[in-house]
Amino acid sequence: MARPRPSVDELVAGLRAGDRGVLARAITLAESRRVDDRALAQEVMARLLPEIGGARRIGLTGVPGAGKSTTIEALGVWLVEQGHRVAVLAIDPSSTRQGGSILGDKTRMQRLSALEEAYIRPSPTSGVLGGVARRTREAMVLCEAAGFDVIIVESVGVGQSEAELAELVDCVLLLLVPGAGDELQGIKRGIVEVADVIVVNKADGDALRLARRAAGDYRHALRMLPEATPGWKTPVLTASAAEGTGIAETWATIEEHRAHQESTGGLERRRAAQQLRWLRAQVEEAVLTAFHGREGVAEALREAEDAVAEARATVPQAAARVLAAGFGDSAPETT
Amino acid sequence: MARPRPSVDELVAGLRAGDRGVLARAITLAESRRVDDRALAQEVMARLLPEIGGARRIGLTGVPGAGKSTTIEALGVWLVEQGHRVAVLAIDPSSTRQGGSILGDKTRMQRLSALEEAYIRPSPTSGVLGGVARRTREAMVLCEAAGFDVIIVESVGVGQSEAELAELVDCVLLLLVPGAGDELQGIKRGIVEVADVIVVNKADGDALRLARRAAGDYRHALRMLPEATPGWKTPVLTASAAEGTGIAETWATIEEHRAHQESTGGLERRRAAQQLRWLRAQVEEAVLTAFHGREGVAEALREAEDAVAEARATVPQAAARVLAAGFGDSAPETT
Repeated sequence: MARPRPSVDELVAGLRAGDRGVLARAITLAESRRVDDRALAQEVMARLLPEIGGARRIGLTGVPGAGKSTTIEALGVWLVEQGHRVAVLAIDPSSTRQGGSILGDKTRMQRLSALEEAYIRPSPTSGVLGGVARRTREAMVLCEAAGFDVIIVESVGVGQSEAELAELVDCVLLLLVPGAGDELQGIKRGIVEVADVIVVNKADGDALRLARRAAGDYRHALRMLPEATPGWKTPVLTASAAEGTGIAETWATIEEHRAHQESTGGLERRRAAQQLRWLRAQVEEAVLTAFHGREGVAEALREAEDAVAEARATVPQAAARVLAAGFGDSAPETT
Repeated sequence: MARPRPSVDELVAGLRAGDRGVLARAITLAESRRVDDRALAQEVMARLLPEIGGARRIGLTGVPGAGKSTTIEALGVWLVEQGHRVAVLAIDPSSTRQGGSILGDKTRMQRLSALEEAYIRPSPTSGVLGGVARRTREAMVLCEAAGFDVIIVESVGVGQSEAELAELVDCVLLLLVPGAGDELQGIKRGIVEVADVIVVNKADGDALRLARRAAGDYRHALRMLPEATPGWKTPVLTASAAEGTGIAETWATIEEHRAHQESTGGLERRRAAQQLRWLRAQVEEAVLTAFHGREGVAEALREAEDAVAEARATVPQAAARVLAAGFGDSAPETT
């Protein structure tokens, strides 16, 4: 049974008051399969947009087993102690397929989720509309409107989410573990090059020396790569989320990155470019989805793929057939 | 005045005979703005596709000043001495805007261009249709049909061409110069991560030690990055194209990479994936170009960008307006 839908004013007022129930409701409306629910959420966000933009948007990624949850918990609790209000969102493309993690996120971060000043949004379940990135962007806006000034977006390391992370946040934090080379199997190509801060975690006990050596190796390696943020040499820290060491240093480095970006105007440019790319991506995705949904296109594409694979047609010839299937006589030309 | 158009049979026969004039003509037809010219070239390629596929497709990129032309000249002349027939194609997005390099490519590689067993296709001039990648792919097919068994695609390091290079070839060779860090300004993000072979050039005279150290640094750095070719540790060589050292070793490494890819089935997979991505990209580009060409869309997009930049609308709201401008009542929804 659907609850009565709140009005735009009620939602806006509830968010401004930092009401957690209203926040949860607004995010659910933004993710809804119903057009009117989403339109309502959009109106709410449009009203709030001019008021927001100051929150820290931090992305955290790393190989499975790097200690992402433990790090978010340690950093989040520490930030709350410093007076911040912290929201944690996970981008987890797999959860939409597998039914979602109903308890997962909160049990992963028990201490943080118990705090009034923290908000952990469980990964969306299946039955939710929209790409992972869109849902996360909108949840970020709504969390900030509800007074959270640090938003941590966690990429759980499945599929495309790492590549999307840099498009969502101001600062990408890459979490690594000590060891030499082997653990890199889990890192997606391109993620090291978009890391603004690297933390080698599990720098404790017997692994401490190994962690320091790994940090040195990464520092050295980064000299060989283009900078993720122009003019900013990505620092490599060591930390132990389990023991709580390196947490304050990690935050201080994130703040230095922020200050760097603010002084160069890079933050404004980064966010503006993210918005424009998102706008274009939304338009183009809708146009392409409409095309691929036309009768006959899916079949024509399969046939075209076979023809190309079997060297029966050149790619432009095969592409022209797919376009003819979708547009008929008004098919555009390939270039 | 247009020359009489040759028939498919004439072109196919001329290419099979390795006729350079026919090759040049076929490439020009493939690049033509005239639909019938391009259709003719496509028919020719469709006829030849089943016969080709054995040639080495090598991409070469590097920062400006790394010695790309000198390296291609040295490698190309050496390959001809070994009995190969070598074609050189440049992907140069800038030339389509600036009128093309009419003499440029041949004067850059005088010794190579004088050889009967080499074919250097000047960068296309403006007035040519099609994306850089498409033109290069088609020129590759035609060169191979004309009997060239090594195709070197040179990315001149402007704009998007480096990112496209890995989509065109079997093996990406990245050319670097000795020195520490500063020269990386010229490298586009992501290119190190797709390099299958790295060569530190200008390893001669006083720079020899510096070049060896840079090679060691890169070897070390690569351990920190995901592999460009699964299971293949990207080797880092030193060479001096000017003195002709390291050329045979570079080729031997390219051949090792080839053998690795053939033994794992990776070459077939790589080429099949490139073809399918190209097919989809051609279809989608045509669909999007048609959409953006509809009356009112360009203006709606500009307005949408302003609205987003000024926080007057959310991105989904702004995207919906662009879609409405293009499709009217039948506009697809954003997701």
